[in-house]
Parts: sequence; structure tokens; C-alpha cells
Amino acid sequence: MTGRGLLDPLFTTRAVAEAVSDRAWLQAMLDVEAALATAQARLGIIPPAAAEAITEACDADRFDLDALARASAAAGVPVVPLVRALERAVPEAAASYVHKGATSQDILDSAAMLVAARALAPILDDLDRVASACARLAADHRDTVMAGRTLLQQAVPTTFGLKAAGWLVGVDDARARLAEVRDSRLAAQFGGAAGTLASLDEHGVAVMEALADELGLARPPLPWHTNRVRVAELAAALGTVTGILGKIAADVLLLAQTEVAEVAEPQGPGRGASSAMPHKRNPVGSVLAAACASRAPGLVATLLASMAHEHERAAGAWHAEWESLTDLLRVTGGAAGHVREVLDGLRVDAARMRANLDATAGLLLAEGVTGLLAGPLGRPAARAVVEEACRAAVESGRPLRDVLLDDERVSARLGPDEIDAALDPAAATGAAGQLIERALARHHRAGGPANA
Amino acid sequence: MTGRGLLDPLFTTRAVAEAVSDRAWLQAMLDVEAALATAQARLGIIPPAAAEAITEACDADRFDLDALARASAAAGVPVVPLVRALERAVPEAAASYVHKGATSQDILDSAAMLVAARALAPILDDLDRVASACARLAADHRDTVMAGRTLLQQAVPTTFGLKAAGWLVGVDDARARLAEVRDSRLAAQFGGAAGTLASLDEHGVAVMEALADELGLARPPLPWHTNRVRVAELAAALGTVTGILGKIAADVLLLAQTEVAEVAEPQGPGRGASSAMPHKRNPVGSVLAAACASRAPGLVATLLASMAHEHERAAGAWHAEWESLTDLLRVTGGAAGHVREVLDGLRVDAARMRANLDATAGLLLAEGVTGLLAGPLGRPAARAVVEEACRAAVESGRPLRDVLLDDERVSARLGPDEIDAALDPAAATGAAGQLIERALARHHRAGGPANA
Amino acid sequence: MTGRGLLDPLFTTRAVAEAVSDRAWLQAMLDVEAALATAQARLGIIPPAAAEAITEACDADRFDLDALARASAAAGVPVVPLVRALERAVPEAAASYVHKGATSQDILDSAAMLVAARALAPILDDLDRVASACARLAADHRDTVMAGRTLLQQAVPTTFGLKAAGWLVGVDDARARLAEVRDSRLAAQFGGAAGTLASLDEHGVAVMEALADELGLARPPLPWHTNRVRVAELAAALGTVTGILGKIAADVLLLAQTEVAEVAEPQGPGRGASSAMPHKRNPVGSVLAAACASRAPGLVATLLASMAHEHERAAGAWHAEWESLTDLLRVTGGAAGHVREVLDGLRVDAARMRANLDATAGLLLAEGVTGLLAGPLGRPAARAVVEEACRAAVESGRPLRDVLLDDERVSARLGPDEIDAALDPAAATGAAGQLIERALARHHRAGGPANA
Amino acid sequence: MTGRGLLDPLFTTRAVAEAVSDRAWLQAMLDVEAALATAQARLGIIPPAAAEAITEACDADRFDLDALARASAAAGVPVVPLVRALERAVPEAAASYVHKGATSQDILDSAAMLVAARALAPILDDLDRVASACARLAADHRDTVMAGRTLLQQAVPTTFGLKAAGWLVGVDDARARLAEVRDSRLAAQFGGAAGTLASLDEHGVAVMEALADELGLARPPLPWHTNRVRVAELAAALGTVTGILGKIAADVLLLAQTEVAEVAEPQGPGRGASSAMPHKRNPVGSVLAAACASRAPGLVATLLASMAHEHERAAGAWHAEWESLTDLLRVTGGAAGHVREVLDGLRVDAARMRANLDATAGLLLAEGVTGLLAGPLGRPAARAVVEEACRAAVESGRPLRDVLLDDERVSARLGPDEIDAALDPAAATGAAGQLIERALARHHRAGGPANA
Repeated sequence: MTGRGLLDPLFTTRAVAEAVSDRAWLQAMLDVEAALATAQARLGIIPPAAAEAITEACDADRFDLDALARASAAAGVPVVPLVRALERAVPEAAASYVHKGATSQDILDSAAMLVAARALAPILDDLDRVASACARLAADHRDTVMAGRTLLQQAVPTTFGLKAAGWLVGVDDARARLAEVRDSRLAAQFGGAAGTLASLDEHGVAVMEALADELGLARPPLPWHTNRVRVAELAAALGTVTGILGKIAADVLLLAQTEVAEVAEPQGPGRGASSAMPHKRNPVGSVLAAACASRAPGLVATLLASMAHEHERAAGAWHAEWESLTDLLRVTGGAAGHVREVLDGLRVDAARMRANLDATAGLLLAEGVTGLLAGPLGRPAARAVVEEACRAAVESGRPLRDVLLDDERVSARLGPDEIDAALDPAAATGAAGQLIERALARHHRAGGPANA
Repeated sequence: MTGRGLLDPLFTTRAVAEAVSDRAWLQAMLDVEAALATAQARLGIIPPAAAEAITEACDADRFDLDALARASAAAGVPVVPLVRALERAVPEAAASYVHKGATSQDILDSAAMLVAARALAPILDDLDRVASACARLAADHRDTVMAGRTLLQQAVPTTFGLKAAGWLVGVDDARARLAEVRDSRLAAQFGGAAGTLASLDEHGVAVMEALADELGLARPPLPWHTNRVRVAELAAALGTVTGILGKIAADVLLLAQTEVAEVAEPQGPGRGASSAMPHKRNPVGSVLAAACASRAPGLVATLLASMAHEHERAAGAWHAEWESLTDLLRVTGGAAGHVREVLDGLRVDAARMRANLDATAGLLLAEGVTGLLAGPLGRPAARAVVEEACRAAVESGRPLRDVLLDDERVSARLGPDEIDAALDPAAATGAAGQLIERALARHHRAGGPANA
Repeated sequence: MTGRGLLDPLFTTRAVAEAVSDRAWLQAMLDVEAALATAQARLGIIPPAAAEAITEACDADRFDLDALARASAAAGVPVVPLVRALERAVPEAAASYVHKGATSQDILDSAAMLVAARALAPILDDLDRVASACARLAADHRDTVMAGRTLLQQAVPTTFGLKAAGWLVGVDDARARLAEVRDSRLAAQFGGAAGTLASLDEHGVAVMEALADELGLARPPLPWHTNRVRVAELAAALGTVTGILGKIAADVLLLAQTEVAEVAEPQGPGRGASSAMPHKRNPVGSVLAAACASRAPGLVATLLASMAHEHERAAGAWHAEWESLTDLLRVTGGAAGHVREVLDGLRVDAARMRANLDATAGLLLAEGVTGLLAGPLGRPAARAVVEEACRAAVESGRPLRDVLLDDERVSARLGPDEIDAALDPAAATGAAGQLIERALARHHRAGGPANA
Repeated sequence: MTGRGLLDPLFTTRAVAEAVSDRAWLQAMLDVEAALATAQARLGIIPPAAAEAITEACDADRFDLDALARASAAAGVPVVPLVRALERAVPEAAASYVHKGATSQDILDSAAMLVAARALAPILDDLDRVASACARLAADHRDTVMAGRTLLQQAVPTTFGLKAAGWLVGVDDARARLAEVRDSRLAAQFGGAAGTLASLDEHGVAVMEALADELGLARPPLPWHTNRVRVAELAAALGTVTGILGKIAADVLLLAQTEVAEVAEPQGPGRGASSAMPHKRNPVGSVLAAACASRAPGLVATLLASMAHEHERAAGAWHAEWESLTDLLRVTGGAAGHVREVLDGLRVDAARMRANLDATAGLLLAEGVTGLLAGPLGRPAARAVVEEACRAAVESGRPLRDVLLDDERVSARLGPDEIDAALDPAAATGAAGQLIERALARHHRAGGPANA
């Protein structure tokens, strides 16, 4: 079983679906039980043979997931029936060493961190590939002039490379924070019945640390059963990642509009097919990435709102985390996977970008003319003159250049060449190239994939 | 397959899990295709034999859910491969009548309404039983005096019956709205490729209405493919229901605290067992209901935030609805099921209620004394006198009655009998009984279950 | 003081800003105190002269808002210092009749309902005008053919009238629910210290109902101090309204894009000016409406998540409502006001709509050709033929008509006239006109403004 | 004007209210304009005298906030009228150097970072004091035994010191992340009309960096006008901080319940007064902190959901940030301020903690007996025996010790002394002391206030 079935291929990747599936959760809980036994054997608290027997039994395939599910309801947590089943699955001599000193929350919290760590591997990989694609697009389209658009209106020229460089910086930053959370904030959780490690005598802290080491998770300073800052930080980092992926998806969707047509998603057999409109090729990857991204904020809010764990174990706030975190990992994976696929094969139509820019004639570059006139006329007057000319150009359909040259306030101060230069979009992309270099240098300094 | 597996028994009921499962979604989509063919045959648009063949083929067990899932990714929606599979599943003569005039969104939206209607049946049943339990508790405990608590401090006496009556009014109201949404707002959605019904010639509106009739859903005035008010209203009604259920769960959790112990959840074999603390009987039902309730607001927010569907089909906002709505139905079912179970077997300890009330001696009734003194002294002075006496009683540990009688400003105006009467909690529950009657009368007027 | 100052004109209307301002809240609390005294005098519980004196004193201009604010912190609620100030503001003989039998929450909850009712008046007015504008656009543009767009791709033709009719149905429905909530769910809240009305002897229920009557609010069956279904329903209705307004704003923003240019917002002096780009006319109203709409879901979630009021008064959940509800009313007002202004002056460019449609030649109407071929070829084969032709047309840049006529599988079965007819967008808007009539009839049946 | 007036003292501190007030926003925008001029003068782009004149004029007291507010609506952003007003406020010679090369978003984004930085100063100070108070409580109550409670049921003993140590670790971690965001992620934003810095010729990047330096903000690699990762990270860090503060508030509220009474909030004149119940002393600080905390998740969700900024300037998503961020800073300040006040004066009743623990006799320590019996009987049998004894003790009201000694399966294996030792709570707090030392050492290593 991988995750939720029917809609998994739309809202996550295969790798993440498997990493957060019911079976993965079950195996993670068993891995924690096995690691606990191993750690305790290493510390001389339980016999090595018992630890070996427990470890051997901790294989999800040996357990009946449906039966565990049914038995969970009475206890309110799947760990209780799982421990019972595990006790039955080991030789009698080992049974009393199962789950020693642990409470259900220790197992489930540590398993949640394992599940997160395992799901983050393919997510961070996909983010690497997204960043690489952004870097490639930024470099390839360093000089691809296009309309910069503000409030969905053409504003002044920019380059497609700079747009991709902006994506790159966002993805690099959001990915870096997610990697940092994975590396330093995914810690084992272990405290016993109420966080005092009381049933392990003097060994409590040592077991807590050894368990973390066994699981490859960070060592916590304290049991964090009711301090959910780690969960919040993970949720926040995932929410931030989906947010920047949603930004990329939104830009692609807008650029791929029929009337804009500056980019197109990669095509494949059946990809983007519509049941009613045979001619259409829908931007399916961006649509699904946008859908994934739009689901994250509500899940993050649920996890943040669930931080007020009462006393030494929450009466509901803890339980609310399980599926919310699972879904958040799931849709983050989906957003990353879809954006990766979209950007890897993105078709960029530079000619169309230039054509769309030319369609507004010189209007976009009016600001440059204002700048030239600001010296002789003062900025307020210059602005008034240019605004008037723009209005006249829009109303008459004449090129701005011609309207400007007809205005004596302008022609007395600027020649046709100066105006032509001011209205050349390719000369009006400012520091775009320099900014792209900065983004690329920063990306390569950070190291890309090797740094994962 | 029923829903999400491992954690289903914690976060929903069996009935709702089945109603929102992958298989249930698949069957609902097929039911819409069958209903469409049937409606069109009835209107003479397609041959009756084709409709019969299509209807016969529309059985979820005949389709490979995993294959459909895999094929969905390319199209971005499961309807596209489903229609292909359905065309293959019918005799060749019927194939060209499959999905006639429809677009994927017509099928999915109408299926979503079917899924919702089917999940609402057990949810509304459980809400009926919750309301009945509240009504029973309100009637049975009309005179069970307990501490009213504000800001988690004992304030003045109330009755457990009045507390239950407050729950009852909330559940009745939230349930009534949910039933209203089910009855009048769950409509078929049908508009063709872009909402004009263009490929059905003059039959479009007739097919739209006949389809609704076939499905037992409301007839829409217009296709509502990008007007998501219906979805928002459904989400809001579900969120309101979980909110009032969360209130009940919170009260039970607080009353069941070891130190309060005024109520206890029903027990059963293994119910509420703790893996580390054998003596504990945890309020599992309320814990899980609280968890379910705390997940709803984020899901409602996602659905409300997804209302800005672009043009004639949303590029992501629509897709974000599917699992969010499924989960919202799921946890609403869970909250209702758990609260039903909790209230059906709730053990109320009236003696403990009275004992907790007596533990603060007369402090809770100080306001009554203020009222008696307000006549002779004026309210501000009366308040000052009583506040002083309360402070003295708290600090000395003496009963308020004695402190008051020692104060000449009081004893000059009130005799011991008057003070004793003012400090009798059973005489201080005001209109509680009358209010309970109002709540019960209103509940029974509304008709309870028969009214579902 | 009106609301929040600097940004009020961006995020709300003047009328709503005033209705939810600090002063408006203060006056509403005073109105409740005055209504309480009046009701009690009418019932013979307090002297008429006292009620008159209290009512006279209940004028917000007589109170020092800053001093009240400062004094609120210690009590945790502004009602406590307000009652003290009111006691000082009335003649000594009336002081002991101030706030009789009430608790802070009674005053604040009833005031919140008053504030909501007062803010809803201009909101519902603006929604009426939005609906009227939609109705006018639907009627005026019954035959204005434009591209229907799905997933931001041109799909098949529709009409601008049908788009506006879709908005109309959404606004009518969302507005109707909001009006229903205002009329039947905004009730006075009155229960005394813990909801038993204990300090009013046998008069409690009568005072509760008389208070509601005085305030023009609905009579509640019970005090609803910890049953927040009413607040949730109000929040949900506001969230639904902003959602449909956000849909309209999104459509306008997309249609107003430079490259689409099918509509433009009304212009005025300085309206939509950019500080850096003098030629731009930004769609400011839709931008701000979209911003307002995007803030509502989080506020609704906060209000839903605040429904678990503990016992007889919540320890935080209640307090979280005050500003959240204020802001929700505020941004709903802003969304309604901006969309009203946008639609009232919307400039629709029918020629541009037709030109954009023609730019994709016959591709949008391919489905019609599929329909014609489905008879002779069977639908699957017809679809394959047309898909192939579409691909060829896109790749070659030739009109679909010509490609089709060159294909023997087509030309053997359809003549040029049949193909031309199939590819005429004006003939391909299906039931659009009929659907517009349905929406208009329904709108006028509901009665429009008079029905507010 | 400081923030929102009437309710400011409830939901924020005076310092944060001032830092996020309308006036503070206005001053921050002016500070950015002044810094821009200064930076440009330093780089030789504009005359030093112009920069001086601009800087001198950039004083909020010279501007009419109401007039700016009114004029903002037409432009959709307050910067447009502000720049006009600033141009009028400087000598004519300087007017054309105002706002040179900037766009409205540059000013507003950089101002938002300034406002955030200024509001974070008192917030981080309050968090320091919260952490110090936690550290003091942890040290002082190292050996104060109390009931550990899970799912609101007494479970096993813990210490109040360990509870406070858990708070400490959470606050230290959440504060560290917030400080990190302030130090490294609050960057100036500057890109000109569409992010290319085009109107500053070759000086663009230099101005961007000099502006950041002038403002004391981080230098950004690129303009981040539509890459909102920084805003998301700030929001997430604030949401995490309020989450852990909400946890502390929840614990205090529960411990302060009348029936538990293990802690009490500090008192002051009028603090916690109830208008109807003179004897009550409400835990006002924790109530308000809880309210603040419960408002954060919805605001964080709004900010995360607003990350998909379209193209080079968002059509609404940007505008949705302004008040949402302001409110998030505001309630974070409120939560921190209230929790600081609560913990600074928290009254801890160790005797009551012990008494509550003793009230459940030995039931909490049953697990210890299970441990002793697990050796001779095996864990499953031991558990069954102890569960049975617990049930018998609860039902009969007899001490668990006596019930155990009456059971031959126990008395055959354990003597009274062994049982007494197992049931001594003070001996059953496990590693609590050691864990407290770890938390304190970590806190002091981090450096506390000096590290802010």
C-alpha cells in the first residue's frame, strides 16, 4: 500500500508516496522498537540475544496492518496493539524486553521523524533538480528579453533569465532551510511514561542518546514529547518550500496562457489531454503543483495550532499531527516532483517573448524617457509630459516614439536617436545580467546536489 | 480499500471511511456516467440499449483502480483514463455514447456531491445520536448541581443538565445547517467543455436537470464549475459541526481530569489502555474527537482559499478540493462517531460534582451576597465589602459565611439565615431548569432523527 | 477613529471601517448596557428613572477610549473598566442598576452581534450592487462571444454574458446565506455569571428576551456564551462571500492582462497610478479585492478553531474572536466595495474578445467536428482524426478548416459548409443564452435590493 | 496612534504596538526613502545636499497620515501619495532626487523589514525574560515532585522543574530561530520597476547594497519582490514562537484550575477581576497569551498562501501581507509579554502538588511494581496482575499498596519495603534532575540575553 491510492500520482511522487505509506509508518515504528532494543543491549541493559530476536521480528511484512488498525481505536494509538503483537512475535524469553522503558509517544514521535527523514530524501533530490533547472534556464536565457509584468500588466522589460534567477534564489533558500531542519532538528524522542525516563533507572539519558544514534537522528537535549518546536520547524520549512514552488508554477501557468504562449510544458503521450477538447495540451504539471502548494498552508496552520500540548501528553493535539504531517510531506513531494518535471522540459519561446513586448510599442520604456527629461524639466514635469504622451499613444494607437517627437517639450530637448535608444528594450534590462551572475555564483557556491 | 488505512479507525467511522474511500469515489464517478447515459436515453438523445450497456458496465469492481491511478497523472484528472476504460468496457455500439456532452469536471464535481451525500448519511445519523444523548443528559441532570467554571476557575453554581442543554442547542443548530446543505445545496454539476452545454444542441439544460434527478441531487440553475459557493457552504457546515463537537470533547476532557473526576468515558475491553501505565483509563474518545475537530479549520481554510477558480476551469484550485473535502468529511465523521460513543456511555458522578463545589465553600456565591447588600449599601460599596470578605476567607481558610458574619457592615444588615440561603448552591442555579426545558422543547419540536 | 487607519481605504470601505471601529465597538457595548437597563425597567425590575439615566450616559463620546484600553489589560476584557466608568457617569441613585445581572461576556457578545449587524448593512448593500452589475453585464453581453478558458488555455467559445451569469449565481447565493445569518442567527447573548441567569431571580429569561428585542437582535433559546455555532456561521458566510468575490476579481485580473485586454477597470484621477511606470493603469480594485479575499480563509479558520470554549467561559478562545471577527468583517467589506466599483464601471471590449478567439482559428471548435464525425466513424476514431488534424494545424500554422478538408477521412463525410458551420464560434455557444435567462430570472425572483 | 487602539493592551505590548503602528510604518517608509537618497549621495549618484534635504524631510510628524490614507486607495499602495508628498516637502532642487530608481514595492518591502526588525527587538527581549524565568523555575523546582499528566490524567510522578525545563528548551529553540531570521533574513528589497534596477544604469547593484547597509538590514543577492521566502521564514518563526508560548500558557491555565491549584498567576490591583464574580482572580495573562497564540496559525497560513506572487509584482498576494504581518508581530508580542509577566511572578504551590499526587495513592507508580514483577512473572503476566490490583484499588478506595500485599502472586515475590520503595513518588522521578541540568547548561551556553 502506498499512501492514499487513487490520487497519489496526482499529488505526490512515487518515492514520497512509499515513504509516507501506512507500511512505511509501520516499519518506522518497528525500526524504533528494534533500535531501542539494540541500544539497550549495547548499554548492557538487556541481553544481546533478546535485542537480536526483537530486531529480527521488526519487519512490517510480518504484521497484519488491518488488524493493527482495528485494534488501535480502543487504545487511541497504533503503538499499543503493535507492542502486543511484537511481544507475541518474539520468543518468550525476549518478550519482556520489548518496548522497555518506552511509552507509545516515544515510538510514534521517533517514527514520525524517521518517516520525515525518509520522505525528505527524494524531496530534497527533486528540489536539487528544480534548482539546477532554474540555474540552467537563468544561464541559457541571460539575454532573452521579455516583458516584466506587474499586477499582471506589462511594465518594463526584463529577461527570462532574471525571472529564472529569482526562482533559483527562492528554491536555494527554501531548500537550504529544509535541509538544515532535516540535519539538525529531526531528533529521536524518548522520555518514558511522562518524560522522566523513570523506568530505566540511571540509564535513561544514555538510552535516549543511543537510540538517536541507532536511528541516525539527532540527539535531543530533553524528551520533547510536549515541546513541538521541532515539528513546527519541519512544517514551516515544508510550507515555505511549497510556497516558492507554487510561485514557479503560477508563473509557468501565466506564461503558458494561450494569449501569452511564451513557455509550454513538456509533452508526452496522453500528457495534458482533455476528455472533451482533443486539441488542448494542458499545463498539467503546473496545475498539479499549484494544487499541492495551495494545500500546504492549511496543513501548516493545523500543525502550528497543535503546539499547545497539555502537560506531559496532549489530549488530541498530538494525534492531530500524524496525518497532517504525512499529507504535508506528501504534497510537498508532489509540488517538487511536478515542478521538476515541468522545468526539466520547459519549452521557452524567445521569439514570442519579444513579440509580446513589441506589441505595446514603446509604452513600457516610458520611464526611461522620463529619466532623460527629468534633468531639463524636473522630474514632476517630465512625468506629466510622458504620462500625457502615453495616454495619447494608447488612445490614438500611434507609437509612443512618434507622439513624443511631435511634442515640442520633448523634441526641444531630445533627438530621435536618444528616444530610440531610450525605447530599445534590449538596452533596458538594467542589471539583469549582473543579477543572474550573482544568483548563479551563489547557487554554485552552495554546492548543489553534493550539498544535500 | 477504505480510505487511508492504518489510522482510519482513529480518525473516522467505518461507515464514513467506506463512503469516502477510493473505491467509493470510483463508483461515484461511474454512477455519474451511468446516470448521464440513462438521462440521455430517457430524453431520446441516445439509444436505450446503449444506456443499459453503459449502466451495466459502471461497476467499480470491473475497473483496475491502480491502473487508473497511474494513468491519471498524465491527464491531471482520473476521469480521462476512466472514460477510456469505460469505452473499452462497453459493447462497441455503445462506446460512442459514453460521457456524451460531458467534460471531466462534470463527472468529478457530481461525483464529489454524491460522495458527500453518501458520507453525510452516517454523519447526520451520528449527530442525531449525539443530540439525543445531550437531550437525555440534560433531562436526567436537570438538578445535578455543579460548579460553573469561567476561565477554568470555579465561578458560580450551574447544573450538569444546563451544560448538556448548551451542547444540545449547538449540535441541533450545526446539524440543522448541515442537513440543509445536504438537502438543498448538493447539486449535480454539468456544463460540458466550458459550461455552455454546447455539444448537446438544444438538449443541454434538459440533460443537466435529468442528470440531477437521476442522481438524487438538487438541480442547479447553472453549471457551477467555477462558482464554488456550494463547496464552500458544505465545508463551512462541516467545520461548524466539528467545532461544536470539539467543544463537547473539550468539556468532557476537562471534567474527566483526575483532579476533577466528575465524568468518565465509557469503558470497554482495552479501551483507553496505555502501553506504559496499566492503571490508566484514558478518555480516548474525547481525545480523538478533539484531534478530529482540530484538523477541520485548516481544511476549511484550504477549501475557502480555493474558491478563485480561474475562468471556466481552475488551474489547481479545483484539484486542491478533492482530498481536502474527503479529509474534511472523514474527520467530521470521526468527531461525530467518537462524541456519540462518549456521550452514549458517559458516566456522570453527581456526588463528585457537589463535592468539588463544596470545596470552595461559599466563595462561588459571593455575588448573591453582593446582591443582598447592594440595596442597603449601594452596589459599589457592597462589592467592596464582599471582595474584602472573599480575600479574607481565602487567606484564612475560613468559610466565607463566618467571615461575613464577623463583618459589622454585613451583620448589621443580614442575618445568618439570609446568608445561608444566599450561599446555598442548589438554590442558586437560577433559570437553569427553565433553560433546559427550552432546549428540550426546541429539540423535540425539530423532530430529532425523523427529521434527518 | 475608524478601524485601523493607514490601510483602511485599501482593505475596507468607509462605511464598514466606521461600523467596526474602536468607537463603534465602544458604542455597541454601551448600547447593550442601555438596552439591558431599558428592558429591566420595562419588566419592572429597575426604576424607569435609573434606566433613563443609564441610557443617557451610554454615549461613546463621554468615555475616554484610551483610558478604557489601558484599564482593560488587568481585567482581560474592556467591559470591566467600562462598567466602572459607566457607574461613575450616572447619578448615584442609578449606579447600582448598571450592568444588573450581567457578566462581561453578555455585554461583549451582544455588542459583537450589534457590530456585525451594523457592518453587514453596507456589506449587503454592496453585494446587492455587485449582483446588479453582474445581472446587467449578463444581459448586455448575452451574445458577446469570447474564448472559454480551462486551465488558462483557450478551450471552446462561451459568452461574456454567461461568465457574468456565473458570477451572479454565486453572489446571489453567498449573499442570501449572509442575509439569512444576519436575520436569524445574530442573537443577543445573555446568561449572567455562568449562564444560569441566577442573579435575576425569576426574571432571567424575560430579561434575555427583552434585551434581544431592545437591540433588534434575534432571541436566543439559551445563553450561547460557550456554544459558538452562531459565530462560526457568521464567519463561514463571510468567508464564502469573500470567496466568490475573489473569483470575480481573479477573472477580471486575468481578462485585463495586457496580452488579453478584454476588460479594463474604470479609471479615475490617479486611480491605478504606478510610482515608477507613468503609462500604466493598474487594475487596482481587483488587486485589492483579491488581497481582501485571500485574507479571509485564515481568519475563518481562526474563528472555527476557537469554538472549543472551555466550560462556562473560554480561557482564550473567546478573546481570540474579537479582532478576528472585526478583521473578517473589514476585509469582506473591502472585497465587496472594490468589486462593486470594478463591475459598476467595467469596460468590456467585445471586439478584442472576438479577436482573441479568432487567433486560435478553429482549434477551439474541434470538438464540434468530432461530434459530426462520431456518427459515421464512431467516437474513438473521430477523436483520433480530429486530434491529428489539430496537431497538424498547430504545427503548420494552417487553419484547422483547411487541414480537415485535406483529410479524406473527413472530406468523404463532411462538406465545407458543414465544417464552416461547425467552426463558427457564434453558433457554438450552446445553451449560454438560455442559462443567462435562468440566472437573471432567479436573480429577479429573489428580488434584488428590496430583499436585503 | 499606536496600532489598533482599544484592544492593543490585551493583544500586544506597548513596545510592539508602537513598533507596528501606522506611524511606525509611515516612519519606516520615510526611513527607506532617506536611506535611498543617502546611499545614492554616497555613491555620487545624487548631490549630497539633495540627500540631506530629503533626509531632513523624512519625519513622519511632517506628514498627514489621514490624507495619505485617503490618497492610497486610488494607487492601491500608500507609497505613491507618500512620494508625491515628499517631493512637495523638499526644496524644489531636491524633488527630482526623491525615490530615484525605486518602485513602490522597494519602499514598502524594505519598510516591512524595518518594522519587523524594530518589533522583534522587544519581542526577543521578552523571550529572553521568558527563558530566564523558565530557567529559574527549573532550577528552583528541581526536586518539587508533582503528578505527570498524560491525556489530562495523572500518570506517573515528575517534577515541576522538569516541566519548566521542557518549556525552556522550547523557548530557547524557537527564540534562536527567530533571532537567526532577524539577523540573516531581514534584507533590504530593491529592484526598481520590475526588478532589473534598470533606471540606475550601472549603479543598480551598488545602490541595492548601500541601501541595505544604511538600513542595517542584510544585503540581498537579488531583489526579492516576488520571491517571498524571507517573509515566509519570518512568519514561520513567529508562528513557532507563539506556539511554544501557547503551550506554556495552556499548562499554567490547567495547573491554575480551582481543583488543581498548583500554580497561580501574579496578582496586582484589579488584575484578573471579574465584573460579576468579586471573589475570582482569573489567570488573565495566560488567557490572553493563549488567545494571542491561537490567532497566529491563521495569519501564518495567510502569509504562506500569499507566496505565489505573479510575475514581477503580485496582484493581491503582496497586499495581503501587510496587515497580516503586522498582526502576527503584534500577537507574538502579546503572547511573549503576557507569558513573561505570568512566569516572572508565578506562584508555585509545592505542597499542593504533593497533595494532588498523594490523592491517587500509589496508582501512578503501578508501572514500577510491574517492573519488579516482570522479572519473576514475565512482563505480560506482571502487567495483568498489576492492572487487576489497580482496578480493585480504584473500586474499593483502598491504597494500592494494601491491595498488592493481599495478592499472593505479589506477596510471594515482593516484601512491603520493596513495594513502599516502588510507590514512593520522590524516588520515581527518574532522570528529571539530570535532564534539568542539561536544559540549564544548554541555555547558559547559548548565552541568554547577551546573545540577543
